[in-house]
Amino acid sequence: MKQNNIEQILSAHSVIPVVTIHSLDEVDSIIAALIEKDIRVIEVTLRTAVAFDAIKKMKASYSNEMCIGLGTVVNVDQMNEAKSVGVDFIVSPGLEENLIKELQKSGIPFIPGAATPSEIMQGMELGCSILKFFPANLFGGLETLKTYAQIFPSIQFCPTGGITEETHSSYLELTNVICVGGSWMMKK
Amino acid sequence: MKQNNIEQILSAHSVIPVVTIHSLDEVDSIIAALIEKDIRVIEVTLRTAVAFDAIKKMKASYSNEMCIGLGTVVNVDQMNEAKSVGVDFIVSPGLEENLIKELQKSGIPFIPGAATPSEIMQGMELGCSILKFFPANLFGGLETLKTYAQIFPSIQFCPTGGITEETHSSYLELTNVICVGGSWMMKK
Amino acid sequence: MKQNNIEQILSAHSVIPVVTIHSLDEVDSIIAALIEKDIRVIEVTLRTAVAFDAIKKMKASYSNEMCIGLGTVVNVDQMNEAKSVGVDFIVSPGLEENLIKELQKSGIPFIPGAATPSEIMQGMELGCSILKFFPANLFGGLETLKTYAQIFPSIQFCPTGGITEETHSSYLELTNVICVGGSWMMKK
Repeated sequence: MKQNNIEQILSAHSVIPVVTIHSLDEVDSIIAALIEKDIRVIEVTLRTAVAFDAIKKMKASYSNEMCIGLGTVVNVDQMNEAKSVGVDFIVSPGLEENLIKELQKSGIPFIPGAATPSEIMQGMELGCSILKFFPANLFGGLETLKTYAQIFPSIQFCPTGGITEETHSSYLELTNVICVGGSWMMKK
Repeated sequence: MKQNNIEQILSAHSVIPVVTIHSLDEVDSIIAALIEKDIRVIEVTLRTAVAFDAIKKMKASYSNEMCIGLGTVVNVDQMNEAKSVGVDFIVSPGLEENLIKELQKSGIPFIPGAATPSEIMQGMELGCSILKFFPANLFGGLETLKTYAQIFPSIQFCPTGGITEETHSSYLELTNVICVGGSWMMKK
Repeated sequence: MKQNNIEQILSAHSVIPVVTIHSLDEVDSIIAALIEKDIRVIEVTLRTAVAFDAIKKMKASYSNEMCIGLGTVVNVDQMNEAKSVGVDFIVSPGLEENLIKELQKSGIPFIPGAATPSEIMQGMELGCSILKFFPANLFGGLETLKTYAQIFPSIQFCPTGGITEETHSSYLELTNVICVGGSWMMKK
């Protein structure tokens, strides 16, 4: 499910499952479980060596049903490898200027992280209007997002970090939350 | 009440009311209420479209009695518009290098925001010695400021965010707090 | 005890005492107290004017027994003075690009501070793989470090700020904590 920009992708999926894959054998069952929950997007983390091969497998088998992104991207080498396996989008935990500029050149939809007002303003200066608020629960959670809604009304956030099945809808109710990321839906 | 630099302005006013104006009709009563409380400074937020016209009206009618600033400034376009209406000072929620450099060129007294030690050091490198600590209550409040007093003894802060009538004097007692911002005094 | 890089220094000492010295007369008793506790490293803060002279005295008398560092370094002038007195390592509360680059040129082992994911990524981009997590207790403490272990597995941290005799071993148990800083061992 290729979409041209990050706003289209995130506004089409209110919940982004953040999934760490330990073996290629898990891929089919994970995708099946997500589709059963009517979730058509996945953010594969770069926390395991198998991440790129898992994405390749997903792109080969599920590119019509799923929007397939790579998370935890922290440098340009990882971005280039992500590009070579054809990811639909990239998520980064923070904001680093060189990486942002290369991501913009790459044409791949992406969302960088930000935690503080200064980081949000640096993101705005670089042309970003959708940011991952991370780690959400450790930097004030809902209260911080409510404050940012008043100060930065043009910025949409995807809060991620410590969000649970119980709390995720409180985040989605905020005017400046486009979607939420988490892994609660992968439990059990 | 024109003052030449941000230290003069902030040290003359221990409490900075942060005010969002929804209609020009409110201006006179807001200023009257502040003067009655012996508050001679106002930070008008940029959260409403009427903010610049409200400042124009204040500057025309109250420039002898009040020091009139604009808050929530996040980019150079807003700074330029603030300059054109003659604001006495500018407040920014964060630290963004291009904006700081343009503010320095403009000659307008300003205070940028910072939340973390790295942001404070980046502000120092840019020549800033007075910073807004924002959002104060969500980044450790009094405890964080006490830590910063030990680490950054040359830096003065204007904490803003979640400060109340009850808590504001605890902030003012800290050696590194030059003034506090908030909107508790506008309630009722 | 000269060691060539910051990883060697920090991995050799699980606890870094952060010490503010008020008089040169204290130096001998402080060092004796540390050696009695089998602590062979000290981070002298720059919070007092006597810090550089204290380091000179330590280097003259204890350079075989102790690894002697300077903390609270926020600019290049302080770095240069630290270099002139021969410190074994430098600690900075945050990350500021110019300072990092000068520290790298200086050849002095150093550890800069970082609090947010963006700051960690900026540190990585500058070539830093060991960072001070500061102020630890005010930015989520153990929970934040556990999150960073998943996101930044290649980065080691020295948490500092609010760590006590009771809590320091919980920090040391984390896979991404190379050592902890604090002053609890100097009490009484």
